[in-house]
Amino acid sequence: MKLEMEGFKKLTSVEKALQILRGVLEKQEKKDTEVLPLTESLGRVCGEDIYAPFDIPSFDRSAVDGYAVIAEDTFSASPSNPIELKIVGSLMPGDGPGSLKIDKGEAVEVATGAPLPINANAVIMAEDAKIVESGLIEVYKQVHPFQNVSRKGEDFKIGELVVRRGTRIKPWHIGALASLNISHVKVFSKPRIGILSTGSELVELGSELKPGKIVNSSKIMLKALINSCGGEPVDLGIVEDDVESILERIEDGLRSCDALITTGGTSIGRRDLVPEAVNLIGRVLVHGLAIRPGKPTGFGLVKDKLVFMLSGFPVAALIGFNLFVKPT
Amino acid sequence: MKLEMEGFKKLTSVEKALQILRGVLEKQEKKDTEVLPLTESLGRVCGEDIYAPFDIPSFDRSAVDGYAVIAEDTFSASPSNPIELKIVGSLMPGDGPGSLKIDKGEAVEVATGAPLPINANAVIMAEDAKIVESGLIEVYKQVHPFQNVSRKGEDFKIGELVVRRGTRIKPWHIGALASLNISHVKVFSKPRIGILSTGSELVELGSELKPGKIVNSSKIMLKALINSCGGEPVDLGIVEDDVESILERIEDGLRSCDALITTGGTSIGRRDLVPEAVNLIGRVLVHGLAIRPGKPTGFGLVKDKLVFMLSGFPVAALIGFNLFVKPT
Repeated sequence: MKLEMEGFKKLTSVEKALQILRGVLEKQEKKDTEVLPLTESLGRVCGEDIYAPFDIPSFDRSAVDGYAVIAEDTFSASPSNPIELKIVGSLMPGDGPGSLKIDKGEAVEVATGAPLPINANAVIMAEDAKIVESGLIEVYKQVHPFQNVSRKGEDFKIGELVVRRGTRIKPWHIGALASLNISHVKVFSKPRIGILSTGSELVELGSELKPGKIVNSSKIMLKALINSCGGEPVDLGIVEDDVESILERIEDGLRSCDALITTGGTSIGRRDLVPEAVNLIGRVLVHGLAIRPGKPTGFGLVKDKLVFMLSGFPVAALIGFNLFVKPT
Repeated sequence: MKLEMEGFKKLTSVEKALQILRGVLEKQEKKDTEVLPLTESLGRVCGEDIYAPFDIPSFDRSAVDGYAVIAEDTFSASPSNPIELKIVGSLMPGDGPGSLKIDKGEAVEVATGAPLPINANAVIMAEDAKIVESGLIEVYKQVHPFQNVSRKGEDFKIGELVVRRGTRIKPWHIGALASLNISHVKVFSKPRIGILSTGSELVELGSELKPGKIVNSSKIMLKALINSCGGEPVDLGIVEDDVESILERIEDGLRSCDALITTGGTSIGRRDLVPEAVNLIGRVLVHGLAIRPGKPTGFGLVKDKLVFMLSGFPVAALIGFNLFVKPT
């Protein structure tokens, strides 16, 4: 048995490694997209810039329950000097804008969300006025123009960018797009991320644990991590500690995956064969990081696809995943 | 038309409202549980305290590639004063613990993850030693006892609490449980959260938007929020602005839901009927919050189930959801 353990000659800083990774990602081709119902787009990555097709609100509307007025009519109103206004109608949410009109000295009862009548430019809150007799209110507080009014276009102006391409879609994006009546969105297809495990000590979850064997828990965790980041994990199994076998399984995996993660076999011991395999069919870009745990972490390119070489140890694999694989 | 808008007499602070909600939650009955494969448990809430069934690592193992030694043999080793050790074998990950043994002056080649041979208590890193001839190494650095060794039970000791009941299961929990060969977990059943929308101005996403109408975007957003919090949203539709109808739909919804969210109809205008409906079949606990937007937010109890009364406006509904509905 010939021993050939030399350790890492030179460690790469995380910053430098990320720089290299960014350089690679910039050159990666655009990914496939698909169109999904908005209601199924949670957590997916938006594949297009989406602009507002109309103003939201699409009309000046009341932000409170109260009375739509001409603000100037209320100037100087106070509890000791109330101003009387005549109620000429009421508007509720859903009523058509422009269906009522007020003149000086008049008001319209409005519920929150109702359109303002023509000529009205402010709303007195219900608690700042009182009905003194049928069709007549006393106003105890002045309002300035557009007070208590949600103005046309104040949430989104027509043509405004609402969700940028590349944004991970969150519940509030879905709310915003729904308010704009956008029922379908173009999203990037989920990246398929293969996981290839090395290590003859590994057994599958739920197997009998013979002495010296350990559960391949890194794979189980990586699948969950990939799922939680919006990717599609592809289980490529456990490969024996042999350069030729590793190389074949990487090539095979990359046929159906957009990128690949290997675990284990990236250190410098006698069986550290993944970087060697990657170099035979592609190019190792980073191997050996100035962090601990996770020193043997690295990545390379095989047929223009990224191969992330993570540690076999769960905590180090988690760090490697969070640093390099997880989308930013 | 009789106007009856009075505004909120008294607003509740968020802190006080949360206190009331906590009081209610403490009295809520335990939820149903189900047993899931670990690999499908991501994002679910753990329904039991899970303890380690064995030590992890289950044996002292090497944390590096190098040579397992008796630490005391290396004391005073340095580049100018190397110490020679005889290699008596090698151990790889997966080899059985206790399958090799060293004596004073001896070492065993070990790869990261390999068990230590009997009598060894430390590992020299590969880069701190050199093979001088077949079966003989020079050691250039001393190691202290248990240096570069992952000790039995250092990750988890047998009987240690690994995941607490009530924990939202994250990828790293899955990794930890997998390492303990725990393939199934008991989780709480997903709470079914009904969403009942009020507002005659509302239309469904994708419908034609007539003047004055708006898309029921709050519902779409709330569904996504409930999904992203691990709940199961149940669409209870849009109810007309009528106390009797609202009351029936709440009672009906609660038959199949664990809790219910209403949107809109919680302000004090003429059509603010949800709190009234809740009070007819249960009890409003909080209505009117000292926040803006979201003042009309509240909650109540109907047949011991929570009814959250949120604003119809998306941003205010989001705030109400995050404050009261979202699990902490």
